[in-house]
Amino acid sequence: MKYKRSERLVFMTQYLATHPNRLIPLTFFVDQFNQAKSSISEDIRIIKHVFEEDGIGTIRTTAGAGGGITFHPEISRARAADIVTSFKEVLEKSDRLLPGGYLYMSDIMGNPSLMDSIGELIATMYKNEQIDAVVTIATKGISLANAVARKLNAPVAIIRKDNKVTEGSTVSVNYVSGSTRKIETMVLSKRTLQEGSSVLVVDDFLRAGGSISGVMNLMEEFNARVVGVSVLVEAKEVANRRFRDYTSLLKVSKIDEYNQSFVVEEGNCLEYIDNNN
Amino acid sequence: MKYKRSERLVFMTQYLATHPNRLIPLTFFVDQFNQAKSSISEDIRIIKHVFEEDGIGTIRTTAGAGGGITFHPEISRARAADIVTSFKEVLEKSDRLLPGGYLYMSDIMGNPSLMDSIGELIATMYKNEQIDAVVTIATKGISLANAVARKLNAPVAIIRKDNKVTEGSTVSVNYVSGSTRKIETMVLSKRTLQEGSSVLVVDDFLRAGGSISGVMNLMEEFNARVVGVSVLVEAKEVANRRFRDYTSLLKVSKIDEYNQSFVVEEGNCLEYIDNNN
Repeated sequence: MKYKRSERLVFMTQYLATHPNRLIPLTFFVDQFNQAKSSISEDIRIIKHVFEEDGIGTIRTTAGAGGGITFHPEISRARAADIVTSFKEVLEKSDRLLPGGYLYMSDIMGNPSLMDSIGELIATMYKNEQIDAVVTIATKGISLANAVARKLNAPVAIIRKDNKVTEGSTVSVNYVSGSTRKIETMVLSKRTLQEGSSVLVVDDFLRAGGSISGVMNLMEEFNARVVGVSVLVEAKEVANRRFRDYTSLLKVSKIDEYNQSFVVEEGNCLEYIDNNN
Repeated sequence: MKYKRSERLVFMTQYLATHPNRLIPLTFFVDQFNQAKSSISEDIRIIKHVFEEDGIGTIRTTAGAGGGITFHPEISRARAADIVTSFKEVLEKSDRLLPGGYLYMSDIMGNPSLMDSIGELIATMYKNEQIDAVVTIATKGISLANAVARKLNAPVAIIRKDNKVTEGSTVSVNYVSGSTRKIETMVLSKRTLQEGSSVLVVDDFLRAGGSISGVMNLMEEFNARVVGVSVLVEAKEVANRRFRDYTSLLKVSKIDEYNQSFVVEEGNCLEYIDNNN
């Protein structure tokens, strides 16, 4: 197949969009199209222009022998706000309220296109950080961790509450669950996370912060540096949360089981984007 | 911003690549670019041509008032074979062998770009099926289910082995674990899966098939139709597997703990693609 510019643009855009945060040697495209480097560079200039104008992301060029281009997904402030608004509309449905004042969220975690958008948002929030792995707690956080990790092109490390034979050697810590005050254990397979990694911790819901505190302790065992903690939803009315430095997309308060009502507000994620740009 | 054709192609390709299996009204692009329908149709023709030539997928046009275009990821036979080969190379590393002859696979499940490729492969295998949901079993299958579901634009339903308050009402079945012969329970939240859905079941590893049989029973409780079962890896030397109709990417046999060795072969997934095209 002999490629015209229009066809090269389609191929390259598709390739970049599906390979975020990965250094692609210019020679990959040069060989694919059997085309001069200068033409490929002009193609990239066009893609970069559209990606930046339309709030899709940036394309960075690395010079030199091992050089190439890297697509960093980085959504615009307007799109970030849209994502928070549509997530708010989904969360606000009153039939989410379960006995005990818990919120049903499995439909949210199981919605791949919503997770994909939120993954873009969280990747944009932490775009200036070096992130070697995305860490989460089984089961509920996994879908979010996958979505974020895919945009960052980083591996996912899943902390479990049970120790399985398929995990190999593990490190475990005990923690006090904030809501039940029970002592629980969390484990992470030793080979899932490299010593000294920089990690982003994500989870679906932040209540008292007991399990996130447990994650912080576990990360110390791995000599890992936690560059951020991000949750989809936080319970607003928690007095002594053990953990303060985090971002959230939404806040929930005034959960009223009797009237089947609760209030949803924006979290601090947009503020975080504004302060880190 | 006034868009040239080259810029429209970049925007549209990026949009389609990140919104698989979703009907996008032609008017979405017409409004975005403030351009005649005929120009947009010509853009789509170019994208369709490249996507089909390069084994990325097909673009289908739906006519009429509610019409538009849908991108169906559908990789070429050659790319499918490449994915199986590279997955085989990853699985073959001998240090995966754990005490008891289990294989460590958390690094595979936590690798977003490998999962993404495998997701494309499995979506291609079942492209002719109507799939309303992707069903899996916590914890290990979740990352695979997310990857497949994203390509199919279908929700994920996660079956758990414990009943959590955040799941609401659940349906549960008992099953006999094939390897331990113990009776275990699996539960699925009632509202996670609609009655009468057509589902694709995915999991990381198939040994005796006890848990997949459990899933089949649970699906009956939801009047769901199982259109396929697909696993990453199957243990080859299982005599009386309770479950026969499935696809696998790889087969493992001759697990020898003493010599730290095992044999990996291709599963039947490529054969399945050949027979269903």
